[in-house]
Amino acid sequence: MITIYKLQEIVSGASALMNVAFDVKSKGGYENIVTSADVNVQNFLRQRLSEELPGSGFLCEEEDRHDLNHEYVWIIDPIDGTANFARGIDQCAICVGLKDRAGMLMSGVYLPRTDEMFTAERGKGAYRNGEPIHVSGRPFANGILCTALPVYHKEHAPECAAAILDVFNQCNDLRRFGAAAPELCYLAMGRVDLYFEYLLSPWDFAAASLILQEAGGIITTLKGQPTDPLSPSGILAANTRKNLQRLLTIIHKHLPAYND
Amino acid sequence: MITIYKLQEIVSGASALMNVAFDVKSKGGYENIVTSADVNVQNFLRQRLSEELPGSGFLCEEEDRHDLNHEYVWIIDPIDGTANFARGIDQCAICVGLKDRAGMLMSGVYLPRTDEMFTAERGKGAYRNGEPIHVSGRPFANGILCTALPVYHKEHAPECAAAILDVFNQCNDLRRFGAAAPELCYLAMGRVDLYFEYLLSPWDFAAASLILQEAGGIITTLKGQPTDPLSPSGILAANTRKNLQRLLTIIHKHLPAYND
Repeated sequence: MITIYKLQEIVSGASALMNVAFDVKSKGGYENIVTSADVNVQNFLRQRLSEELPGSGFLCEEEDRHDLNHEYVWIIDPIDGTANFARGIDQCAICVGLKDRAGMLMSGVYLPRTDEMFTAERGKGAYRNGEPIHVSGRPFANGILCTALPVYHKEHAPECAAAILDVFNQCNDLRRFGAAAPELCYLAMGRVDLYFEYLLSPWDFAAASLILQEAGGIITTLKGQPTDPLSPSGILAANTRKNLQRLLTIIHKHLPAYND
Repeated sequence: MITIYKLQEIVSGASALMNVAFDVKSKGGYENIVTSADVNVQNFLRQRLSEELPGSGFLCEEEDRHDLNHEYVWIIDPIDGTANFARGIDQCAICVGLKDRAGMLMSGVYLPRTDEMFTAERGKGAYRNGEPIHVSGRPFANGILCTALPVYHKEHAPECAAAILDVFNQCNDLRRFGAAAPELCYLAMGRVDLYFEYLLSPWDFAAASLILQEAGGIITTLKGQPTDPLSPSGILAANTRKNLQRLLTIIHKHLPAYND
């Protein structure tokens, strides 16, 4: 079995491919772009992780074919926050998560621009650059919410804006760094306290979800259910179960379609 | 007269005072905090800048007494983005601007966590770590808007949210890094393209406004008028005059009190 140290080494090694000149292509509109660095990082990770864990499957952002019928499946976003990456903004990350039949097993999320390596193994805690991390203990009223309006579903922006405004009136402030995995890692280490996004792909949240849970945080779908690391989903997350429940109640008022 | 190199050296020197343990105090509610680092940086800057330019006045965030009746006035935010600073988030900055009777003359904005020094002198261009910078040429539809809901004026959050939603539907995406000066410097170097904030204090925007203008960008009040580096003001900014005009038109629809 691959160790967390080997995973860390591979993820860190892949980041060298982000430090060279890259092309940017649209995948549809200004919002959805891919760079040659995304593709190169993904190819590197796929090859190295296949060598380390032969027979494992892959669910990767920049690839249409997914092999999910395996005991072990890698869930990979070669660059989460590609728009930030392409514009020179710090918050972008290589995300690699490994799941087995029981759920997420091991994760590495690396922010190369700030040299922050977040790791977790199921049942063994979460770490930033080797130091244990934990969510904050802040009450809702002092919470900072990381969030976004849905850039790929602008037709749902009005109800999301109403929900965010309602949370804003009850918490401290908002942030929108523009990349889900770094924001969930910030939540895991107590930099922020609450999280809401209308719809994410599994490669956006799967790796970071284990880091957050191992750091003591809560992550659910918009229905308050456990997330599925192979399925797209709206995401709520918080430092405490109490704050997650309060966030869920507010979001449901404005997105009742999710209130089953 | 003080040189830009000397200013840079002083600002950079002050940042050492941010690398030590600090206390956090509330100035009123969870939103408005000050740390011992803010006070220490401000005292250091005041003393060193007074020595370099005897007889100059000061407008500083963490001080109630302002001496503005001078040919030269320093406008200082010892730490812009104190909440980010206290939480370990990268986007925070030491902001020092110098004005004379004609307007902003010289600025230094330093982000110690990412070691980015933005500087400008009137008529001499803008720089990041010594390299010339320029705003992007992106069209509005590909623009990223940096913005915030008004944390000190939550009663005006609904109309701001409506304005932001309207811009979102016409541009690429939003960001909210949580500190005005870093965001205006990001705009100056083309990382983002548009900016709107309901109300800022002069120390939040004065230093960065010169950097943005020297990088080719536009900054105005919510009425589209030139900003006054000694007065609080709502702020609009953009990479081009055309995009500023479009942003102004959208904001005015939702904040008509500013539409004179």
